[in-house]
Amino acid sequence: MERKEFRDLASPEEAHAAIDSLSLEGGLERVSLENARGRVLAARLDAELDVPGFDRASLDGYALRAADTFGADEADPARLEVVGEVHAGEEPDVSLEDGQAAEISTGAVMPSGADAMVPVERTDVDDDTGDVLIRTSVAPGDNVMFAGADVAAGERALGPGTTITPRDIGLLSALGIDEVPVRAPPKVGIVSTGDELVRPGGDVASERGEIYDVNSYTIAAGVEDAGGEAVLYPHAGDEQDEMERILREAATECDLVLSSGSTSASAVDVIYRVIEEQGELLLHGVSVKPGKPMLVGRLDDSAYVGLPGYPVSAMMVFRTFVAPAIREAAGLPEPKAATVSGTMAREERYGEGRMRLLPVGLVEDSDGETLVYPVDKGSGATTSLAEADGVVEVGPETDYLEAGESVTVRLFSPDVRPPTLLGVGEDDPTLNRLLDRLENPRYLSVGSRPGVRRFREGVPDVAVVAGPLDRDLEADELGRWNREWGLIVQAGNPHELDGLGDLVDRDLKFVNRTTDSGLRSSLEATLDELAADRDESASELREAIDGFELGLRAYESPARTVIAGDADVALGLRETADRLDLGFVPVGEQPVRILATPDRTSKTGVRELEGVLDGDLEDV
Amino acid sequence: MERKEFRDLASPEEAHAAIDSLSLEGGLERVSLENARGRVLAARLDAELDVPGFDRASLDGYALRAADTFGADEADPARLEVVGEVHAGEEPDVSLEDGQAAEISTGAVMPSGADAMVPVERTDVDDDTGDVLIRTSVAPGDNVMFAGADVAAGERALGPGTTITPRDIGLLSALGIDEVPVRAPPKVGIVSTGDELVRPGGDVASERGEIYDVNSYTIAAGVEDAGGEAVLYPHAGDEQDEMERILREAATECDLVLSSGSTSASAVDVIYRVIEEQGELLLHGVSVKPGKPMLVGRLDDSAYVGLPGYPVSAMMVFRTFVAPAIREAAGLPEPKAATVSGTMAREERYGEGRMRLLPVGLVEDSDGETLVYPVDKGSGATTSLAEADGVVEVGPETDYLEAGESVTVRLFSPDVRPPTLLGVGEDDPTLNRLLDRLENPRYLSVGSRPGVRRFREGVPDVAVVAGPLDRDLEADELGRWNREWGLIVQAGNPHELDGLGDLVDRDLKFVNRTTDSGLRSSLEATLDELAADRDESASELREAIDGFELGLRAYESPARTVIAGDADVALGLRETADRLDLGFVPVGEQPVRILATPDRTSKTGVRELEGVLDGDLEDV
Repeated sequence: MERKEFRDLASPEEAHAAIDSLSLEGGLERVSLENARGRVLAARLDAELDVPGFDRASLDGYALRAADTFGADEADPARLEVVGEVHAGEEPDVSLEDGQAAEISTGAVMPSGADAMVPVERTDVDDDTGDVLIRTSVAPGDNVMFAGADVAAGERALGPGTTITPRDIGLLSALGIDEVPVRAPPKVGIVSTGDELVRPGGDVASERGEIYDVNSYTIAAGVEDAGGEAVLYPHAGDEQDEMERILREAATECDLVLSSGSTSASAVDVIYRVIEEQGELLLHGVSVKPGKPMLVGRLDDSAYVGLPGYPVSAMMVFRTFVAPAIREAAGLPEPKAATVSGTMAREERYGEGRMRLLPVGLVEDSDGETLVYPVDKGSGATTSLAEADGVVEVGPETDYLEAGESVTVRLFSPDVRPPTLLGVGEDDPTLNRLLDRLENPRYLSVGSRPGVRRFREGVPDVAVVAGPLDRDLEADELGRWNREWGLIVQAGNPHELDGLGDLVDRDLKFVNRTTDSGLRSSLEATLDELAADRDESASELREAIDGFELGLRAYESPARTVIAGDADVALGLRETADRLDLGFVPVGEQPVRILATPDRTSKTGVRELEGVLDGDLEDV
Repeated sequence: MERKEFRDLASPEEAHAAIDSLSLEGGLERVSLENARGRVLAARLDAELDVPGFDRASLDGYALRAADTFGADEADPARLEVVGEVHAGEEPDVSLEDGQAAEISTGAVMPSGADAMVPVERTDVDDDTGDVLIRTSVAPGDNVMFAGADVAAGERALGPGTTITPRDIGLLSALGIDEVPVRAPPKVGIVSTGDELVRPGGDVASERGEIYDVNSYTIAAGVEDAGGEAVLYPHAGDEQDEMERILREAATECDLVLSSGSTSASAVDVIYRVIEEQGELLLHGVSVKPGKPMLVGRLDDSAYVGLPGYPVSAMMVFRTFVAPAIREAAGLPEPKAATVSGTMAREERYGEGRMRLLPVGLVEDSDGETLVYPVDKGSGATTSLAEADGVVEVGPETDYLEAGESVTVRLFSPDVRPPTLLGVGEDDPTLNRLLDRLENPRYLSVGSRPGVRRFREGVPDVAVVAGPLDRDLEADELGRWNREWGLIVQAGNPHELDGLGDLVDRDLKFVNRTTDSGLRSSLEATLDELAADRDESASELREAIDGFELGLRAYESPARTVIAGDADVALGLRETADRLDLGFVPVGEQPVRILATPDRTSKTGVRELEGVLDGDLEDV
């Protein structure tokens, strides 16, 4: 079998058109009224009965013949004989003649012979005779809701395509309808391949390079967000037979099959073969970055789209090309809230000649304007997902987006809320607990130095800096605390370490933090002092420490290396040692400072953080 | 037992405070990742492992020691011995020494001894020796993603209170987390009482004044919209013991109990007794219209709120006072889209000294501005529900809202979409089918005359007028069709009617349409002609027709009366007679005209309607 080669990449418009040409509709189904909320009505519903179904008293009072009240007023009431009473939910057992009235309650059936009613407030009872005195005159129909006056049998009640909200459920209830025909959600099968993928909850063997499968659940959630029903198929690994069987099964059972991560040659071969034997390939390759390897075709009666493997790329291509088609098939137009406008926080250059899907984060500036900043940690990084709120489409003819330029952001889902506070900098356990108290913060623990750099660029609201600050920073300090740092060792300090000197002098395996971290800065400063005391060069001291150059990114990572037995000593915090039941050799204290961009201090999220910092940090 | 009387009504602020003082929280639960979308995280989740869990090749190419490439370039490549290969999902079975390289695929584990990799594009293979020629120099770490570089063990991943969206599911997947602690939705029990209520799907005995229960399902849907879990309790009727048992059961099982429609004296008595014995009444009566009879209290450990009985009132009070408290307890802040701004389409007067909850509908004007119009069909009308999009709070100090004044509308639910087209006027079967083809229309079948009146007031986009038009109307006619009208009789025309003359001359029971309808106008005009022909007065002719004054609201209602055997002859359309298999005696034809407000003709919904009208109406 030869692999089909496409000389030209399709345009994004052609990709949209190809997906639109596929039928994703899920058909019809009937659901009970209790399960109808949010569903899309498949057919018009007309009223099959009158509401109310009878002439109904609107108030408590007396049913009567209007003609008997003509001329009556406060001074000269009409006197009527009371011949019975009617309550709500009862069949009237009286029938009125001229000069008669019946006591009636709100919602009760008007007795025959009556054509109007008078509220109790406009009446008196003659205690001697039991007659009622009517102190007003009424016209036929007054205070009566006639049968069908609310909804008449045969009237159009709800049209096809109505998304059923609580108020529509009210109308359906009134009509006695307890089951409605709705569109079935498009059934979307998700097939992910790759020998290295393990489903969350399973054990990954890192030594074999196994990783958790990110796309399956992410895309499944995206499918359901768009109104589809997601079906996860088991991993096929890279075995061709198994994969072919699963693809064919998904095509039989679903309206749309999505595959992702099928980048291995054997997986691509299987997909091509199945499509060629049982379907049609509409396009292979789209002129968009990322997403170039996107496939669109048909498998039996099912539509098929192949997504890129990297999570952020897969999400962006799904959001841009696939989600709108699922929404269309589900009859659920995209909510307005799924798209927001903002201005670019900084310039971004392109000029690649194809459409670019740019993952972006959002932050509000001091005026409540939405700033849009590109998130670029490499599409292989899953943390980009947590940092990105949506995607900006940049046309192929656009060479650059200027800072301050208006852009439209498609949020990854309508539920995505831009953060109330954007912080960057050092990672710290006290900070983590402070963040837990805020409404909806985003914190990027890039380390103190990169935090300061990003802070200077003007995007984040606050920077968190631990240890010495190289240069002056134009910032308002919102608060600070001290943290004790030192050497983390096995419980009981089996090597009997005293301090930094032991690290230099003895044969111990050490694990450091990355140079980005404030902890590393304090360690280096203290080593410099030690070198000066000993009259040696700082670089000699560093070289004498086995593992000094190997830095880990987060404050707990070195300690975890000690627990794993891969190192004897780790750089870390007393708090970490205590939490993980490890030994601790104190070396120093360092401040952790929260610095705010001066013109963002009145922003709600920043004020909220300041409020938390003003509390007792010991309690945090 | 005495009934507690409250002399003063609570202010709306006190009502909010009373509900806020109750605890509605539903506790915690654990859900699988597949069911986590839209749920609210109950605790912070930290990374328990490094992502990636190993040093990972970022590209296809060769793993090597960076030092071996120093100085290499296109002209002078470095030659390395290839000692093995590593694929994704495999444990490396090689270890590199100086001068060695291993073939490696994207995502594979870097073999020990290697500290960088070179992409295949920058290499050549010497076919004779099998050695690889490296045409570039790299630094340690190049093209390698180190373990923990994406997420490091111990890092804060997601904070408490996060509403889980697809991108968060991506991050959780990457961390291998397949189950998350989330807030349980507040459990809200709904108890509705009233002997006259029947659940939808059951049979209503209209002769006894039974009606379908509207509030139970409507409020249940509202509860779920706000993030709660609704539990419907069986109807208790008005029997005190049964009702008490159900109230106590709901209080035991739920975080909040809502009752509605408990307007009968006995129901109120039971609620008071149960609250006094097992709880606390916080307030009775709120200074708001509608909603004055609202109750707030505690039943055992459950919160309790009593809602008004009429559906629109119940919805408005629920939306204003209860839904925000449920959202708060669920941790789901109200989406921005649940509130819209607009301008009043016409003046509205108050001056009642208490807060008014005004049910309103929305329509876009020619400039895309949202016009807000009050919906006032009496709170007993369930059709108000279908016409109302939300509620405007009018403060007690406000005497009137001016036309053009800005108001804030709380939509009944975030899913409510204002209609794309607002039409008013005659009801007609062809029109109903036309409406089915539009995106999201709202049509109020108030009849031709009231339609014209509303059209003149400037709120609707189009009016649909059947029969003669009294006065000139400034409007663009978008389209028209003719309909044949006449007398509908039993199949086979058993009374052998010929035309209108028989109605006047013979002893037949007739059923008419309301005077609002164009059908009635045509009937009256034709009778006037008959009177002139016979040289009689029109009023004599009308009086001679038994049932002439009784008019029904919808075009099918009179025909249904004939089917029910309650009349011999009905005013109606040939299409109705055909559809219902009845006999038809033609009398005349009348035009149905669709008229648009001139400055709304460019509105999308109006253009869409015009497009449908331009098609072949026979096919509709």
